[in-house]
Amino acid sequence: MKQIPVAILGATGYTGAELIRLIEAHPHFEIAHLGAHSQAGKFAGEVLPGCGGDVAGMELKAADARLADNIELVFTALPHGAAAGSVYSALAAGKKVVDLSADFRHKTHETYRAAYGVEHPHPELFNEAVYGLCEFNREAAKSARLIANPGCYPTSTLLPLVPLLEKGLLDSSSIIVDSKSGTSGAGRSAKTDLLYCEINESVKAYGLPRHRHAWEMEEWASGFSGAEISVRFVPHILPMTRGMLTTLHLSGKDTGSWHAALMQRYEDEPFVKVLPEGVLPSTAGVSGSNRCDIGICQLSDSEAVIVSCIDNLLKGAAGQAMQNANLMFSIEETEGLAIHALWP
Amino acid sequence: MKQIPVAILGATGYTGAELIRLIEAHPHFEIAHLGAHSQAGKFAGEVLPGCGGDVAGMELKAADARLADNIELVFTALPHGAAAGSVYSALAAGKKVVDLSADFRHKTHETYRAAYGVEHPHPELFNEAVYGLCEFNREAAKSARLIANPGCYPTSTLLPLVPLLEKGLLDSSSIIVDSKSGTSGAGRSAKTDLLYCEINESVKAYGLPRHRHAWEMEEWASGFSGAEISVRFVPHILPMTRGMLTTLHLSGKDTGSWHAALMQRYEDEPFVKVLPEGVLPSTAGVSGSNRCDIGICQLSDSEAVIVSCIDNLLKGAAGQAMQNANLMFSIEETEGLAIHALWP
Amino acid sequence: MKQIPVAILGATGYTGAELIRLIEAHPHFEIAHLGAHSQAGKFAGEVLPGCGGDVAGMELKAADARLADNIELVFTALPHGAAAGSVYSALAAGKKVVDLSADFRHKTHETYRAAYGVEHPHPELFNEAVYGLCEFNREAAKSARLIANPGCYPTSTLLPLVPLLEKGLLDSSSIIVDSKSGTSGAGRSAKTDLLYCEINESVKAYGLPRHRHAWEMEEWASGFSGAEISVRFVPHILPMTRGMLTTLHLSGKDTGSWHAALMQRYEDEPFVKVLPEGVLPSTAGVSGSNRCDIGICQLSDSEAVIVSCIDNLLKGAAGQAMQNANLMFSIEETEGLAIHALWP
Amino acid sequence: MKQIPVAILGATGYTGAELIRLIEAHPHFEIAHLGAHSQAGKFAGEVLPGCGGDVAGMELKAADARLADNIELVFTALPHGAAAGSVYSALAAGKKVVDLSADFRHKTHETYRAAYGVEHPHPELFNEAVYGLCEFNREAAKSARLIANPGCYPTSTLLPLVPLLEKGLLDSSSIIVDSKSGTSGAGRSAKTDLLYCEINESVKAYGLPRHRHAWEMEEWASGFSGAEISVRFVPHILPMTRGMLTTLHLSGKDTGSWHAALMQRYEDEPFVKVLPEGVLPSTAGVSGSNRCDIGICQLSDSEAVIVSCIDNLLKGAAGQAMQNANLMFSIEETEGLAIHALWP
Repeated sequence: MKQIPVAILGATGYTGAELIRLIEAHPHFEIAHLGAHSQAGKFAGEVLPGCGGDVAGMELKAADARLADNIELVFTALPHGAAAGSVYSALAAGKKVVDLSADFRHKTHETYRAAYGVEHPHPELFNEAVYGLCEFNREAAKSARLIANPGCYPTSTLLPLVPLLEKGLLDSSSIIVDSKSGTSGAGRSAKTDLLYCEINESVKAYGLPRHRHAWEMEEWASGFSGAEISVRFVPHILPMTRGMLTTLHLSGKDTGSWHAALMQRYEDEPFVKVLPEGVLPSTAGVSGSNRCDIGICQLSDSEAVIVSCIDNLLKGAAGQAMQNANLMFSIEETEGLAIHALWP
Repeated sequence: MKQIPVAILGATGYTGAELIRLIEAHPHFEIAHLGAHSQAGKFAGEVLPGCGGDVAGMELKAADARLADNIELVFTALPHGAAAGSVYSALAAGKKVVDLSADFRHKTHETYRAAYGVEHPHPELFNEAVYGLCEFNREAAKSARLIANPGCYPTSTLLPLVPLLEKGLLDSSSIIVDSKSGTSGAGRSAKTDLLYCEINESVKAYGLPRHRHAWEMEEWASGFSGAEISVRFVPHILPMTRGMLTTLHLSGKDTGSWHAALMQRYEDEPFVKVLPEGVLPSTAGVSGSNRCDIGICQLSDSEAVIVSCIDNLLKGAAGQAMQNANLMFSIEETEGLAIHALWP
Repeated sequence: MKQIPVAILGATGYTGAELIRLIEAHPHFEIAHLGAHSQAGKFAGEVLPGCGGDVAGMELKAADARLADNIELVFTALPHGAAAGSVYSALAAGKKVVDLSADFRHKTHETYRAAYGVEHPHPELFNEAVYGLCEFNREAAKSARLIANPGCYPTSTLLPLVPLLEKGLLDSSSIIVDSKSGTSGAGRSAKTDLLYCEINESVKAYGLPRHRHAWEMEEWASGFSGAEISVRFVPHILPMTRGMLTTLHLSGKDTGSWHAALMQRYEDEPFVKVLPEGVLPSTAGVSGSNRCDIGICQLSDSEAVIVSCIDNLLKGAAGQAMQNANLMFSIEETEGLAIHALWP
Repeated sequence: MKQIPVAILGATGYTGAELIRLIEAHPHFEIAHLGAHSQAGKFAGEVLPGCGGDVAGMELKAADARLADNIELVFTALPHGAAAGSVYSALAAGKKVVDLSADFRHKTHETYRAAYGVEHPHPELFNEAVYGLCEFNREAAKSARLIANPGCYPTSTLLPLVPLLEKGLLDSSSIIVDSKSGTSGAGRSAKTDLLYCEINESVKAYGLPRHRHAWEMEEWASGFSGAEISVRFVPHILPMTRGMLTTLHLSGKDTGSWHAALMQRYEDEPFVKVLPEGVLPSTAGVSGSNRCDIGICQLSDSEAVIVSCIDNLLKGAAGQAMQNANLMFSIEETEGLAIHALWP
């Protein structure tokens, strides 16, 4: 199979670095362009200490540098708001796009405005964008021009939740989502509150009263299940680089059947692992892999706790983006993605 | 004021080490006896790297060594089950006791059995033991012979919860307690799952379906408020040494009044700091101090999130024990206890 | 190319886990046997949280279980002393062996005794064993039946040192090796001093006056260069899981030529990256990869500092083992090994 | 004894925060002024999460706000270059000063220029400034108007080195200083390379070929011992908040006598603890305390390794500053300073 040239826009953030790593090890994609807003002119290896091999010597291009004609796929790892314009241009130039920002994750301009507080420059693309939660939108992804890659919190929440919603087992009025994220999810900006000494040996909640991902969770929990869903969502930031654990405090009916329902839904999914009943996952168990591990513990006939774990930079970002890219180009869906974690 | 000789039983665990530090810096207590189950015969400084000064050269005594007559106060920092006998002996020898184990935290033998799965050797002492949550049991502590020092999870949960329960503002059927603890809470036993490489860069839930502290929370939430309280409690272990953050997902009425209710309840308490409405605490902000910081965020008229932070080894263990000891000996309650955290 | 069935003995330690991950992702090897001393009868996924896919359901075999006839390669990730017998048996059964223990790293029984303080059960194999520092013993590795996989500290020391020794640029009487290692190098045994709370937020030196790896460093620095080399070696343990940084405080001549000498020596080596002069590596830059990054800084005409970084579980253990296995089976040397780090 | 009002300039950095904590718990000093360059107008508690009690509500003042007349002591915790002017003004207003910057640590303008690359605005104060390494300059500190508080690296190096230099036991031409520092030493500026995800799980050397503290080490090693000393100094930054470990690779004579020499020199010093021969310290053992722990291991008659540990924010900064302040005001030298570490 021929090599497919790809571009990464926003190559020097944590998600961009992860995309480089994945593409470098992928048998069918190759890096043809690295865009980086403020680092243009430097070599990738100067800004990204993990780079080895040829990519270390690639020059970073300015954000608005024109993409070569032969580039077929663009990953946009840019801040929300900034991504939309680049996505528009890339599509206009005939490329496929996997957008890792939030710009095309919503169904309506109203929801986008509510969640992000700004006008969207290209709402006309909302209809075309495919929400790339692969396990629930695989067929649409295969023929998509534009994938909206899901957020990390929604991914870790929707994977355990949707199968139970589909079966009508959940009380959709009392879904409590308590998430714990590694710090890499906050990005690579030089902010005091992301300094090592501020994060280390500490945990805090943030984003209250309503984090932007709450809209995305509700929209797609509703969208995939057909029910009207609301969630109470509290995210926390933890002293670790990677990893996201979401604890779902749930009520409903027939909780004794939930484990089997999840097992059945995911038995053929390479990247979702439902643990034996009562066994709980850890984020270290998925770090470096594209897996989502799910554990469930019944509390009573009507109450249960579900815990899910992902690597926020992989299944929560670059890994799922690569999974979508594989789908878009008719490549084996697991190609270039690790099932086994880098543990310890 | 004269120096009061004290003994620590279980001196070489993490809580014991913290008691040594506090007593060494306290103007009215002095260490007269260090008991250590398996390390007897060694010097304190050999087993506890933080030791400086004279205490480093003190010899550790066998667990059943007789306490000198002049010792007036005994801190028992022993595993549950093991503590009860030592407490009984110390009381019989005329000493006062602050027990940091779970052995005297429950009102009835039935609850103890349910929570710990064993028979209690001295249930006759249950009535005498004072549950040492100082902010709610101060007067009883002053005249107590035996203090049952509260657990870390119950302390971080009861402090924000009880004032709202007292006022009838909470829906007591939907209290969800999602706690995150530093690893020191799991003790100093050589277990594979507490190794550095297993805990580092990872988070997991544990203790399901029902952690032992759930009984303690419910018993005292009910006891202090007069209502019948049940909680859904999920603890997590985090890659940090100290610190505990408890996120309370709550429903009730008049949530707009909750912040004022907490402010009012704690305005004269030196060790409870209610943050401005919407400001959320971090565990680093209380690390090394005896404070509990509480933040509250209203979600709607009937829903709110409360977050509390303590240092699990201080307000959650040795610090509260010292606070109780001060009360028992008519010493200024804040003596020897830090208000300011060791930050960063 | 056909799949080559391999066995891992000592599959549930950190090095064993890393071997599993590498083999699972390797196109030409497949896991046929997982030996685990004390965990026999359990499934791999119960003991190794990172396991996904089919290997999670493989049963762990007792240490002395017979290896199937079709197994062609055995990785022994066992403690020194314990490995030798398993190596002997595997060779006797006609398999090739990559031994990750220290049992076959020395040229003479005398040196082994001095370093490890025990008699060796099979010194007759010393002559046959090939010291698998691939960059210096590549041809021998290709035809080896038994590879002695180098230690982590020697690997990080020899790679920067040997090229300069070969050229006679170093004062071989004043080589100071100050190494800093992540905690995974200490293994997965349940020891108090490896607990999270003992390692976290702390650094210490250990292994003085003479760590066992000092003999290995001296023996092979001498062996590869032909000079008589002695080192002063001080290792430290750091609060991080992976990574090893070695700081070499060196004297010699023509230090201005050292950078070029290293660049030239390693220009064609895929797993050694010599940074621009004055640029210093970090362990995060090689974590998850099989690279060794080397930085050099001239202090004067006769003094320089060289810093090398490896992932102690990869180029320092399982990665180099896989590199050797590729050589032994005429597979592309880089197959199944990452050049790019998992960063951050 | 009356309360002595003090000012802290640079109150919101990590050293400033530590000064606040120490003064708040000190029986004879009280905070009267908190200066903070860019945070003026905010309350201390808004910027410093560790603040409790009254100081949390103190307003931060602009950098050039006039100090009240009653203030007797000023701690300047400002960047080098910026501190000199504030020191000058405070002295002119009749206050005593403990300067935690590097501005008055050098004996000559030439050395300052060489180390810091800038002109000094007030070299006329060099003669008056007392280098506050208390264990070697105690008497001078008692009568000083201006203390130059030593740097963290020099403190951890000079304490073990000077006694041996004084006795002529060291080969002063081959002193190698390999230091490892927690990240708080790099300050609280919002820089990308100090972000949590860049520091965590990584170690690197920095500051080569010659870190600024090398001049300070050499100047005072020479100054206190009378010999001409040069050092080869390589600092490293580690993934921990606090703590500094310095490994000294030393040559000389009579190494068998070195342990006794250090024991004797420090037997009456409350803040220096020489461990039994062959026992090596860890930074966790001094974290939160003002101690320096020193371990020594003889390698041969002419070679030894010495390891020293301090908390870089205490004995390496704010703690030693407080020790000096106690000396300046004839207060017990240990007042307000912990001997015991906050461990774990």
